[in-house]
Amino acid sequence: MDKTVYFDNAATTFPKPDCVYNFMDEFYRNYGVNAGRSGYKLSKKASEMIVDTRMEIADLVGISDPSKVIFTASATIAINQILRGLDWNIIKNVYISPFEHNAIARTLHYLKSKYDFNIHILDFNPDTFEVDTKKLAPKLAYNKPDLVCLSHVSNVTGYVLPIEQLLEMVTVSNPILVLDCAQSLGLIDINLSKLNIDFVVFAGHKTLYGPFGIAGIINNSKKTKLSEFIVGGTGSDSTNLSMPKETPLMYEAGSYNIQAIAGLNAAVKWIKNTKMNALYRKEKELADYLVTKLDNIDEVEMYLPKDRGRHIGIVSFNINGFSSGEVADILDEEFNISVRAGHHCAPYVGEFLKSDNGFIRVSLSYFNCKEDIDLLVDSLNDILWR
Amino acid sequence: MDKTVYFDNAATTFPKPDCVYNFMDEFYRNYGVNAGRSGYKLSKKASEMIVDTRMEIADLVGISDPSKVIFTASATIAINQILRGLDWNIIKNVYISPFEHNAIARTLHYLKSKYDFNIHILDFNPDTFEVDTKKLAPKLAYNKPDLVCLSHVSNVTGYVLPIEQLLEMVTVSNPILVLDCAQSLGLIDINLSKLNIDFVVFAGHKTLYGPFGIAGIINNSKKTKLSEFIVGGTGSDSTNLSMPKETPLMYEAGSYNIQAIAGLNAAVKWIKNTKMNALYRKEKELADYLVTKLDNIDEVEMYLPKDRGRHIGIVSFNINGFSSGEVADILDEEFNISVRAGHHCAPYVGEFLKSDNGFIRVSLSYFNCKEDIDLLVDSLNDILWR
Repeated sequence: MDKTVYFDNAATTFPKPDCVYNFMDEFYRNYGVNAGRSGYKLSKKASEMIVDTRMEIADLVGISDPSKVIFTASATIAINQILRGLDWNIIKNVYISPFEHNAIARTLHYLKSKYDFNIHILDFNPDTFEVDTKKLAPKLAYNKPDLVCLSHVSNVTGYVLPIEQLLEMVTVSNPILVLDCAQSLGLIDINLSKLNIDFVVFAGHKTLYGPFGIAGIINNSKKTKLSEFIVGGTGSDSTNLSMPKETPLMYEAGSYNIQAIAGLNAAVKWIKNTKMNALYRKEKELADYLVTKLDNIDEVEMYLPKDRGRHIGIVSFNINGFSSGEVADILDEEFNISVRAGHHCAPYVGEFLKSDNGFIRVSLSYFNCKEDIDLLVDSLNDILWR
Repeated sequence: MDKTVYFDNAATTFPKPDCVYNFMDEFYRNYGVNAGRSGYKLSKKASEMIVDTRMEIADLVGISDPSKVIFTASATIAINQILRGLDWNIIKNVYISPFEHNAIARTLHYLKSKYDFNIHILDFNPDTFEVDTKKLAPKLAYNKPDLVCLSHVSNVTGYVLPIEQLLEMVTVSNPILVLDCAQSLGLIDINLSKLNIDFVVFAGHKTLYGPFGIAGIINNSKKTKLSEFIVGGTGSDSTNLSMPKETPLMYEAGSYNIQAIAGLNAAVKWIKNTKMNALYRKEKELADYLVTKLDNIDEVEMYLPKDRGRHIGIVSFNINGFSSGEVADILDEEFNISVRAGHHCAPYVGEFLKSDNGFIRVSLSYFNCKEDIDLLVDSLNDILWR
């Protein structure tokens, strides 16, 4: 296959740093046993690596207790674990942003078929992406939030949500706060010692540059204890038919995915060595370069926040006269450029930004370069001028 | 670390065939994108590999429809998906064997706190492991089974359950049948075109010689449709807040774990090339060799079925005067031999076999050899004679 320019990093970052592939492969060949189940040396070595990875993740969000890091096989499972582990008898008003992913939107929709609560969409101005405080404030006062779920970074628009501002507005009633950092952890600073957030969700294979198969929850909640979701063997207290009550074990039934955790371990260390600032700067520089270039094409309509300081790495746009899928197909077939078209598992953004057509999404990583963007822009011009 | 003799293959087979490590690494480096979400070439290539793996798994159990193969991140999740996807309003009597793993036992226990049903343990003779038909037949006639969950191979004793005999006994009331093949698929023939089983569970990382992070369900049920369990993005129909209704998609929310599926793909092909019979013969030969050797040590008490034709690959035993954990620790520390002690996530076997102490478990794979067993037996004698 010819060389591909890959712009689908919001789906999964690709490629990974070499150290991720290498450590994953090496660790699995040498220590690929079932950790936490047995006391022998190989298993202990694997368990130590798991604890080390928990500590790396905890450190990334400014906390020191590794037992607050719960591993799951995907961010989707992490979100199911959180939302379905809550006590729905005391939740009446749920607020979400219009930028939420189906991991949150569909899970809430599923829960709504079983419990009696309301889902409110937080008000944002579709032209500027700013919080519409005028609309939102009375809504919050009238229907006090019990649970608020927010994407940190929109997987469609690259918009960095104003978390501090929103937290300040919603915390009047001290709701449970869930922050979906699938598109931000490792790229944007999150400090849980300063932010009053209960549950942070992360995906190993996105901005953390780790592999598929490992994700999780940082459980920083003092106000609620999640009940178990996936139940089964934990390698401990085997004759007890109940799940263990200690965290993180009660949320981690089944075997640990050692090679994926090893990959994540290498990835977080790579992020720290490269410096998060450098990753952010590079992606920001590329995003700005892309925006400037696309801005020169009359037929292109981009969906960007007014405050470009709140924008990172993902640019969605449409081209007059073309469907998003059509453009993505031509870019792939004729130019070997991988972008994604459609609604990107974000059910509300299309309506919010008034685009039935979905979006052509270009999502960047540290491993893209300006030449990639030049090639994309040249290809789009080619499509327009034929 | 010195060379270890690894006897914890029932926890996870280790090592894997080289082709599994190699293909997993190679495929992930070259095609590590988000499959099924986008239409570009890399993603299509990844999707094709997923379909190919479904076909390999389907073929292994004698069916031809790859859409019946549902991928999950672990066998634990697969079992949660099945049991929690059933309609519990119509299930009153559940039968399980005393050999079940906590993936099944704890999930049923969890469901019992929410729904009204009875859990019956199928009657087996603890001396011979044979079905106690005399006890069981009237029980089945009185409390007709609505759901039957069976391990194909016990993860503690290596006992191959007499599935045909049990199916014949329980099918009077046409119950839903779940067969947990975590310890058997790839090692022992299962033909779904001949057996009336609704759901087969498999674990990629055990007898299939694949990696952690991939497992699943073979959904062969004509009598029941599982409701969704984990909900979230599916890369399709994004503006629809409900999960898609088609199988396997409705059960596969979240990103596919491409490297794990690639590893499983290579593993199943390796099994077919090596021939399942050869794998079985080797493991059976090693198990017989181990049993014969252990039989010569007076202090050893093994837990074996009377019909040795129904025994494969896993030997549990105890040594008079020692706890199982004590022996496992000495074997590890002094002799670099990895075995597992305790109850092995099987909550009923200890009681069934009257061992409060748990068991020292030696579990074999194709990659063990007679010299490994000689070393174990010499070490046990050393421990006894000191």
